[in-house]
Amino acid sequence: MREELESLRIVDHHCHGVVQRELDREGYEGLLTEASEPGALGGTLFDSRLGLAVRRWCAPLLDLPPHAPPDEYVGRRAALDPAEVNRRFLAAAGLDALCVDTGYTPEPLLEPAELGVLAGAPAHEIVRLEDLAERTVAEGAGVAGFPDDVGSKIAARAATAVGAKSVAAYRAGLRLRGERPSPAEVWAAAARLYRQADLAMAGHGGAPRVADETMHRYLVWCAVDCGLPVQFHVGYGDSDVDLHHADPLHLTPLLRALERTGTPVMLLHNYPYHRNAGYLAQVFTNVFLDVSLATHNLGDRAPVLLAEALELAPFGKVLYASDAYGLAEHYYLGALLFRRTLERVLGEGVEEGSWTRSDALRIARLIGSGNARRAYGLDGTG
Amino acid sequence: MREELESLRIVDHHCHGVVQRELDREGYEGLLTEASEPGALGGTLFDSRLGLAVRRWCAPLLDLPPHAPPDEYVGRRAALDPAEVNRRFLAAAGLDALCVDTGYTPEPLLEPAELGVLAGAPAHEIVRLEDLAERTVAEGAGVAGFPDDVGSKIAARAATAVGAKSVAAYRAGLRLRGERPSPAEVWAAAARLYRQADLAMAGHGGAPRVADETMHRYLVWCAVDCGLPVQFHVGYGDSDVDLHHADPLHLTPLLRALERTGTPVMLLHNYPYHRNAGYLAQVFTNVFLDVSLATHNLGDRAPVLLAEALELAPFGKVLYASDAYGLAEHYYLGALLFRRTLERVLGEGVEEGSWTRSDALRIARLIGSGNARRAYGLDGTG
Amino acid sequence: MREELESLRIVDHHCHGVVQRELDREGYEGLLTEASEPGALGGTLFDSRLGLAVRRWCAPLLDLPPHAPPDEYVGRRAALDPAEVNRRFLAAAGLDALCVDTGYTPEPLLEPAELGVLAGAPAHEIVRLEDLAERTVAEGAGVAGFPDDVGSKIAARAATAVGAKSVAAYRAGLRLRGERPSPAEVWAAAARLYRQADLAMAGHGGAPRVADETMHRYLVWCAVDCGLPVQFHVGYGDSDVDLHHADPLHLTPLLRALERTGTPVMLLHNYPYHRNAGYLAQVFTNVFLDVSLATHNLGDRAPVLLAEALELAPFGKVLYASDAYGLAEHYYLGALLFRRTLERVLGEGVEEGSWTRSDALRIARLIGSGNARRAYGLDGTG
Repeated sequence: MREELESLRIVDHHCHGVVQRELDREGYEGLLTEASEPGALGGTLFDSRLGLAVRRWCAPLLDLPPHAPPDEYVGRRAALDPAEVNRRFLAAAGLDALCVDTGYTPEPLLEPAELGVLAGAPAHEIVRLEDLAERTVAEGAGVAGFPDDVGSKIAARAATAVGAKSVAAYRAGLRLRGERPSPAEVWAAAARLYRQADLAMAGHGGAPRVADETMHRYLVWCAVDCGLPVQFHVGYGDSDVDLHHADPLHLTPLLRALERTGTPVMLLHNYPYHRNAGYLAQVFTNVFLDVSLATHNLGDRAPVLLAEALELAPFGKVLYASDAYGLAEHYYLGALLFRRTLERVLGEGVEEGSWTRSDALRIARLIGSGNARRAYGLDGTG
Repeated sequence: MREELESLRIVDHHCHGVVQRELDREGYEGLLTEASEPGALGGTLFDSRLGLAVRRWCAPLLDLPPHAPPDEYVGRRAALDPAEVNRRFLAAAGLDALCVDTGYTPEPLLEPAELGVLAGAPAHEIVRLEDLAERTVAEGAGVAGFPDDVGSKIAARAATAVGAKSVAAYRAGLRLRGERPSPAEVWAAAARLYRQADLAMAGHGGAPRVADETMHRYLVWCAVDCGLPVQFHVGYGDSDVDLHHADPLHLTPLLRALERTGTPVMLLHNYPYHRNAGYLAQVFTNVFLDVSLATHNLGDRAPVLLAEALELAPFGKVLYASDAYGLAEHYYLGALLFRRTLERVLGEGVEEGSWTRSDALRIARLIGSGNARRAYGLDGTG
Repeated sequence: MREELESLRIVDHHCHGVVQRELDREGYEGLLTEASEPGALGGTLFDSRLGLAVRRWCAPLLDLPPHAPPDEYVGRRAALDPAEVNRRFLAAAGLDALCVDTGYTPEPLLEPAELGVLAGAPAHEIVRLEDLAERTVAEGAGVAGFPDDVGSKIAARAATAVGAKSVAAYRAGLRLRGERPSPAEVWAAAARLYRQADLAMAGHGGAPRVADETMHRYLVWCAVDCGLPVQFHVGYGDSDVDLHHADPLHLTPLLRALERTGTPVMLLHNYPYHRNAGYLAQVFTNVFLDVSLATHNLGDRAPVLLAEALELAPFGKVLYASDAYGLAEHYYLGALLFRRTLERVLGEGVEEGSWTRSDALRIARLIGSGNARRAYGLDGTG
């Protein structure tokens, strides 16, 4: 299995840009996990599953021995040109295609095209719906035209983007109703958004911020109307998320409605609710899942995670993603750990007699790339 | 261990009838998992833990080699007399007794007595409470007499049935209050039910449908008053269930009240909340659990599931069930995977030195049949 | 690894007193697990992961062979002086320090100093906040001065205690708001508490009982103002807890606020929400966790538990605790299983190449004692 899997090029269906600047120890740790920073109380974030995986697997790509100490690792990384660091990790990820969420840029990040060049693979765009709505407000379009304006913007992006993403989980939570909101409901939600934006921009130099059940839902339906697959942030994220509002089960009423449209829905991350996501992927014909972000955070323990998600999820409904953000290591580690995970989970089944080697390889290709190609129509058939 | 476990006849304390008609590929996949159908987006449901387990374990009973491809499997199955297929799988399950839920029959299914003959074991009946209530309404008994009528019906069935089952999880959810409802509350709930039934039957050719916290609770207390053990659907089911309303922890207030009556309560299925169920089985003297439905859906990974449930659940509080429905394979696979699970979980403990071989065998007999015999009084002592 | 870990003295940062009386079989089983008693329906509580671990690991300390039958075990225990039983198990736990919660004493228990002598280690005190508040009411201090009185009491105890503990999970649940309550809110909560206490003490010989979101929160902020680390009961407990109100995720808003104060927060027990706790320990700089209580209840399966908690939790944020209560076996078993867990989890990583042996030993020392010493300032630096 190992040989076949090492040469399997995989589709990273959800990832972000990376920084191209020099990072000191604190800056590096600040991007490593979902903690905003290491703290004196808790010690270094290198003392974690993820930190130890970086030392084991990433150090050799920086010409260091495996398990190099953190200071040595960060020092060597800083001694290289940041572009060279990014090139090494992205090239080594063995990607077949990338689907890049371009809607979260608190600092300059590489663009999809740049990532694609480094990875040697086509980079597609995923439109972040709330970001588009907030830009629409900030650009000064009036509230009266907002529903149509944002719909048109999404439609325009749908010409090139391969999917849309909702971060409702971070804002109003995933308890979204199933019904398509009525025009009156959308206008009321738009009015609330403009009031919030007026206050925020006037008083505090703030910005428009979508965090409204109706508005999240409206944006999702706009994407559906444009024929875009819809990604949802689910579960694990940083301390801004209220994790119990990010359980994918809250989406059940909306999933029932979206199933009738045939729109592919991608549940991203999912940890620690990945078994719940597996259930949804079994009972709804249009629901897909990944275990991104958690995969690299769990380091060498990643196989446990996918094995749990695959308890109920049909193998045709599981995707690979890194959710890489900031550090190019995330691209490489995610892909490496995912291949090892497939090898472990599928290989153990072959050894135990649960399935044949040829079924195992076929399933690896589905999960690694076939499912994403089919669901997003990456071969032009979507 | 293997030899002893292979010859251990087990009590399947929760199962349903199976179909006795020919099935094509689509019809077969529609009954295989909790998905209502396979979908073009996600591929075949044979590409799942369960599908691969069917190919491995069930193919030989149809005279095919293990891992026979799906079309070959379904083709061979269709070539046999459906009664012969059912006979083979039910006879091979090695059952000591069956407790059959007769309240869900969207299409003709084998009756308990027929299942018992095929399995070579006595088949007892489990009364589905909501079904009985809905029949009472449909049979035209007036609302005034409804509380007594349904109570009498349950009492009449209690003469032969060994337990009652509530599907509150699928309807109003498991947040049931602990108190026995007052007569006034029951009358109000009955009035609501009759109003719904009138509308449904008049306007749309619909049927009465119990989905009301008070009414579910009333029915449970009727069963308790008749001395029937009460089963609750918990957790995993098809897309009609809102899984987060089916967490067994929602039953905590009612379990506190039922503990005082000494009524055995059986938490069925439980996945992915089986650890929560294990906790309840530890802290309440009358709570039992199983990991049915998930057992065959997890295929060869089933041991993980029972091991997690057994973290807190005392070994005297765990039961076996298949939750077989529609396909006779579910009876056979459930039983086979359960025996393998016991062998794995208990055998590893012997090897590791956690317990003795004689303790392991004693515990296997408890979980496989002794606990169910004691809790349901199957030996006439209940 | 084994040798180093067997000689590693560990800090038990959350435990209780034990009884020093003779126990018959029923009395022993009543203290063994979180069930209040064994029941005829479910059989003996010795038939559980915990019961089998007692027979395996504890029997030899009572001069019995491993796996001695329950009656033999309880009989031999009763034949020894209860003080001798306590001495044997506490001395064998290999503790470096104890932090004893003294606020739950439904029957006479050994005091911290007595436990410390038996364990051969310093015993510190943890103040149970609700207990202190209830005593303040019972001692007759009027409602007008209550907020200041209870604040002063906590401050006085802070001179010697090393931490405070909240049992909000057992009372109002963990949905505590993030804001420090206003004086008016505290007065209103105090008035509610005094009304409840008046009714309870007058009518039914009851006692004051804090079970009020505002009051729990006020007590936590009093502890924070005194510079005390704050422990929260989370998850697993007896049948008095509503487990779904004890999910650590409910604390998210309060954790955001406490992070700004730099106060260490210890999430106790956590099962079955230990992965959620691991997430919180990653994203909040001040959050620590343990897997106490569940560790000994899971017996030889304890490694699974810590491995899951360590998926996201940085190694600098994980503590050891037994949550021993009543039986001295809990002290010994907790410590033994924890050492075996560290050996298993960290040793497997060494074998697999995930980290070096020296990293593994360093991490074991952090989790076993260094983190608790740092977080509680046990070396006088806190």
